[in-house]
Formats: sequence, structure tokens, C-alpha cells
Amino acid sequence: MLPEPIKKFVEAFAALPSIGPRQATRLAFYIKNLGDAAIKELSQTVDNLSRLKICSRCFFPYEIVKKSENTNEALCYICSDPNRRHDIIAIVEKETDLISLEKTKKFNGRYLILGDLKKNGTLDRVQKLRLNNLKSFIKQELKNAVTEIIIAVNPTTYGDINANLIAQELKDLTTKITRLGRGIPTGGEIEFADEDTLSSALQNRS
Amino acid sequence: MLPEPIKKFVEAFAALPSIGPRQATRLAFYIKNLGDAAIKELSQTVDNLSRLKICSRCFFPYEIVKKSENTNEALCYICSDPNRRHDIIAIVEKETDLISLEKTKKFNGRYLILGDLKKNGTLDRVQKLRLNNLKSFIKQELKNAVTEIIIAVNPTTYGDINANLIAQELKDLTTKITRLGRGIPTGGEIEFADEDTLSSALQNRS
Repeated sequence: MLPEPIKKFVEAFAALPSIGPRQATRLAFYIKNLGDAAIKELSQTVDNLSRLKICSRCFFPYEIVKKSENTNEALCYICSDPNRRHDIIAIVEKETDLISLEKTKKFNGRYLILGDLKKNGTLDRVQKLRLNNLKSFIKQELKNAVTEIIIAVNPTTYGDINANLIAQELKDLTTKITRLGRGIPTGGEIEFADEDTLSSALQNRS
Repeated sequence: MLPEPIKKFVEAFAALPSIGPRQATRLAFYIKNLGDAAIKELSQTVDNLSRLKICSRCFFPYEIVKKSENTNEALCYICSDPNRRHDIIAIVEKETDLISLEKTKKFNGRYLILGDLKKNGTLDRVQKLRLNNLKSFIKQELKNAVTEIIIAVNPTTYGDINANLIAQELKDLTTKITRLGRGIPTGGEIEFADEDTLSSALQNRS
């Protein structure tokens, strides 16, 4: 019943996270009704994601802006920034976590993006590769002089399991492996905080 | 902080209905991580929406499949179907409403898609044009012999207001202007039905 291009669109977009077939169908017709120029532009916007390179050190996507400058072109703007510390590394799950941390402007180290953590308590092949990549970097570039590794994954049950796995992998490299502080979020209420959170808040009082 | 192609993607997709900037950002990184081949394919999927024509009679998008056949190529598969009645017309708001009605397999007439109804109780320029288009069709092609016009818009407050506007526009063309029946939906409970719905259910008992 659906025309083929609409059907294909729905299949492709419903396969993306947090878009269902209903939303995808509505989107397809909505975009169709925007007209050919807008369709072309949107298609180009998707295609332009190909222009991004993936940083070989932290795996954050970046764009090569100035080709002429004599900078290391295999690195993103964070990893190539001489003003940032390379010996303090925050390990995050997603690119959006990196962005959230960057927005605080309170972190002057660099990152390693691991990709979505599995809920079954194992690290996948890509994650192991990326951790090995970090290990090599610490050995070869930092000459083992790493100051701190922050395992900045969510303080959830499976986040904790994964954090332990990651800490195991890295324990020979540094004495200082930390996690983000736990406590009551700003604007939160003590009355509604769970016991774990409140215990952490007591411990981390300042 | 976001690379330009990601920023542009977020802007474009957050402008679509029911996608917020957060979801758009997550989507951008997710799609980037799918790799270049998948990006190309997704971009092409969007671009292919341009291949659809819009039916000049009901305004549903359709694809010209067989160019050689001697059919009217300006019409969708419903409007060009000789087995469907052209003198019974369902006026719907959205393409997805048409699809929902088609799925019932209980309607053998044709449609007119009006596009999103305004909440301010007026029909916009495009909607007036489409209604005029329908009027011309009824006069010229049907020689005024239209059997029924079903105003199949949502039974909401602003749906009702718009239905009245549409009925006003068409009242000289046919004596039979209907709306979809109201009552308790299958699986619903009398206890939780509002008074209006229950009144309709009593009136429409069968």
C-alpha cells in the first residue's frame, strides 16, 4: 500500500534508535511534502556525515578544516590541542557523554570513547581494541606517565559492571583510576534520593 | 564544540516533527558510526522521496512504476483504479490517515488529503485550493453526481471546527456529508468512556 520509496524510508529510519515505524512513516510523508529542494538538502545533510573523520586517539568524529596547517590530521580538536593534558584520560561510553563533560568546561584532559556498553557484562571486540589502543598510547607516548584515568560511565548497575571490567584492563597502567562522584543532583530532593545515592552524598560531602 | 556536519544534521533533523535536538544529536553520532556505506544508503533513501509524484486528484504520493502502460500517469493507484468509486470521497487530514482507512479494506471510494489542519479554525491557502480542486472535479468529471463526502478528520475539538468549515465549503455539492462514527473503541471500557463518547455510542448502537 505504501509507495516503495516511502516503504524504504520507513525501514531505514525505523532501524535507527528511538524511531519507531509510526514516527518514521509520519516523517517520510512530512519530508516528501517539504518539496524536492528540501529533500535534496536533507539527503545532503545525511551524506555530509561521511566528511567526518574519526579521531584515531579518542574516536570522536572531527572535520579537517585547514588542510594546509602543519598539524596532526589524524586527531580531533581535543586530542590535537597542546593546551590539554594528555595524561588525564576520561573513558566515556558515547560521543554525547563527551559533549556533556566538555560543556562543564571543568575537564582539561582528553577522552576515550568506548561505544555503547553491553548489558551482559563483557566488552566487545571494538571496545577491547580501543582499550588496547589506549594502553599503547600510555606506554609509547606517555612513557607510562599517566596521571589519572576517569571511568566516566553511567552509575547504573551495568555501568558499574563495565567500569569494573575496564578498571581490570587498565589496573597495571596507573594507580589512580576514578569514577564520577555520586550524590544528590542539583535541584534534587533528599526525601526522594535512594539509599545508595544518599550514602554517596554523605561520603562525598564537601 | 560539535563538528559542523553534526551540527547541520542536528539543526535539520530537530526541525522535523517529534524529533528534538537531543534525539537528533544521538542520531547523528549513531549514523556516523554506521560507516560510510550506510550513510550513503540512508542519504539515498531520503533522496529517493523525490522520485514520488503527488497525485493531482487526492494528493497522495505515488510512484510511476510502469511507464509503458496506457494509464493516466498523473494519478495515484487509488485514483486510477477503475474498480473504485469516484463519487464517494473521504476527506482526510494526513497521508497516514488514508493508510489507516485503507487498512480496514472497508472503503471503496477515493480520498482527498487536506494536510495538517490549523488549530485556529481557518483553512489555509493550500487546503482551500485542494477543496476547490475537489469542487471542480465533482462538477466537471462527476457532473455533480457525487454520492457522499465523508469528512474523516479526528473527532477532536479543532477537528470538529475544521469539519464544519469543510462542510460549509462543500454543502452545495452534495446532500450527504458525513463524519466517521463515534463510540467506544474496541477493547475500551464503558466505565472510562467520557459522556460525549458514551452519548454517541448510544445513538450509534447497532
